Amino acid sequence: MPIPLPDPPRTVWAAAGHPPSVRIIDQRQLPWRLVVEELRRVEDVATAIRDMHVRGAGCIGATAAYGMWLAAETGCPPDRASALLRATRPTAANLAWAIDRMQHEGPSLAAAEAIAEEDIAACRAIGRHGMDLFECRRRELGRPDSAPLHILTHCNAGWLAFVAIGSATAPIYASHDAGRPVHVWVDETRPRNQGARLTAWELAQHGVPHTLIADNAGGHLMQRGQIDLVITGADRVTRQGDVANKIGTYLKALAAADSGLPFYVAFPTSTLDPSLLDGRDIPIEERGAEEVSWIDGPDAHGSRHLIRVCPEETRCANPAFDITPARLITQLITEHGACTANEEGLRQILPGGMPPVC
Amino acid sequence: MPIPLPDPPRTVWAAAGHPPSVRIIDQRQLPWRLVVEELRRVEDVATAIRDMHVRGAGCIGATAAYGMWLAAETGCPPDRASALLRATRPTAANLAWAIDRMQHEGPSLAAAEAIAEEDIAACRAIGRHGMDLFECRRRELGRPDSAPLHILTHCNAGWLAFVAIGSATAPIYASHDAGRPVHVWVDETRPRNQGARLTAWELAQHGVPHTLIADNAGGHLMQRGQIDLVITGADRVTRQGDVANKIGTYLKALAAADSGLPFYVAFPTSTLDPSLLDGRDIPIEERGAEEVSWIDGPDAHGSRHLIRVCPEETRCANPAFDITPARLITQLITEHGACTANEEGLRQILPGGMPPVC
Repeated sequence: MPIPLPDPPRTVWAAAGHPPSVRIIDQRQLPWRLVVEELRRVEDVATAIRDMHVRGAGCIGATAAYGMWLAAETGCPPDRASALLRATRPTAANLAWAIDRMQHEGPSLAAAEAIAEEDIAACRAIGRHGMDLFECRRRELGRPDSAPLHILTHCNAGWLAFVAIGSATAPIYASHDAGRPVHVWVDETRPRNQGARLTAWELAQHGVPHTLIADNAGGHLMQRGQIDLVITGADRVTRQGDVANKIGTYLKALAAADSGLPFYVAFPTSTLDPSLLDGRDIPIEERGAEEVSWIDGPDAHGSRHLIRVCPEETRCANPAFDITPARLITQLITEHGACTANEEGLRQILPGGMPPVC
Repeated sequence: MPIPLPDPPRTVWAAAGHPPSVRIIDQRQLPWRLVVEELRRVEDVATAIRDMHVRGAGCIGATAAYGMWLAAETGCPPDRASALLRATRPTAANLAWAIDRMQHEGPSLAAAEAIAEEDIAACRAIGRHGMDLFECRRRELGRPDSAPLHILTHCNAGWLAFVAIGSATAPIYASHDAGRPVHVWVDETRPRNQGARLTAWELAQHGVPHTLIADNAGGHLMQRGQIDLVITGADRVTRQGDVANKIGTYLKALAAADSGLPFYVAFPTSTLDPSLLDGRDIPIEERGAEEVSWIDGPDAHGSRHLIRVCPEETRCANPAFDITPARLITQLITEHGACTANEEGLRQILPGGMPPVC
């Protein structure tokens, strides 16, 4: 009997029965199948994060938080659970942030639920602040109310990347829901195709007009005036506003700067790493070569196949993130508002200023 | 009985028997199978060019030249043959150049062979001039003779893109053959994956060390100092040195400029379009959406499948080329030598100066 999604849908939640479990959408199956996976041990949670059954800043953080609770429920020592979970994804800031908080507050279900609920609330606030920027851009362009704003996004910073709503998609959904037309250019996002598989699926479910493109196409579309703004999420943001995000983000930021287009990065402040100043100090995860050389999907009859895209002996490299320096970012958008991408800008919007380094 | 390749191998050649034919490597089958296709009518030649059984600047030009000869041999009027062939690929400069020349000189086999032989000679000269630049770069970096120069290339401007040797690959092969170590970062080159399928195959055949990466990864590798120079081919070059090349080239040129790395564009002057000054006036071919949404390759057992990479209803756009403005190009490399990417630079190396506009 397949487990249904909760209503409203979310990417991760707890089932506090006997035995307790953490439930997630297994995102490796999307868009072909919507499968809920039940995780009964913290080791399963670690595998789900490392092997990207779940992925995306907020979703990783919330899943790790529920994992810490599950560990406590199932008698796994908190230090062991923390070490297991921390080792899964080296670039993701939300991972350490959520684990730290669960260790500090104690690994209760209430603490994990609070992290998840705050993630949802932060995304909702990002939607409001981002929509204000979209409306400014619309006025700046003199775009009529009936014509769409053309938005490029890279990877998936949608509700699948958080508990719900998403970061980069939040202003898109908010605009669409408010009757402000938007059209989204969706970067395929090789090698794991989160754009083609997740963002295209999400936008279709929500009824948002969109067009899928190869990652190579964005610069050309900007040169030709077919993109009005770019918005992405973030996996880690430093104190000075440098952004680690999905590999290829930097190339789009360069192109946006070359065409004079706004480049926005949307993230909840749980993604901020106040211990780092320079983005070059963010560790970049190197993932398996097989993510580049193999790809799966259904044939015309719906049968799924895993196929190779290069000669059998070809060596592949697979850095999963890159660094977009703050100088290429027009505004950062957080739950506390939008700001210039630098330390002063962040300090101004953060309640209580820049968080202390632990 | 499969038709063998000539020795030395080339991508296109004539079989002047009864009936006459043009033979090509069907590049859609690579790297899985090396298949020679026999074309008996100019309509088949047009299909082979349009549907990319053959592709790449010099290879398209030579194939069109042989097509004009085949048309004459099979009683197809030259005007009809010319119109058929010209309509196949709107961005490729070599196409019109070769057809013009065959119409001007008369569609003899000798005229087609001359175009093919000149293509080979031009690529060989590009190899010499390009290798000089590689050696300069090696000295500039203080790289020891035993350590490789790390070169990024996009798409396939290899021997498969010409009659033989290639443009961007010519200095790579020349360096490798001269015992000057090189390592090539190969961009996958979505959506048609010419890097993963053709360049990786070519380099492996030639024994050149290489690593396949997603198109998204090049900027990051440049930021981290893992790339020493970038070299690509061109599909059309304007009088002021703007370059139309495979979609995504522009993004790599931006990244090279941002990291202070040389960005070279190698092409025979048959790719030069002296009738255009500004790259923005080059027509950009829009290819079928199915090139983005479907991909083929073998599974682990060697059975080939065509699979979908996105939801069934997803709309896709597929611009096939972009424009790299001359300001981002360090040097143009032609059979007549290397030069600054501007009108004066080109005029200085071209024997007889800039060709007149027809």
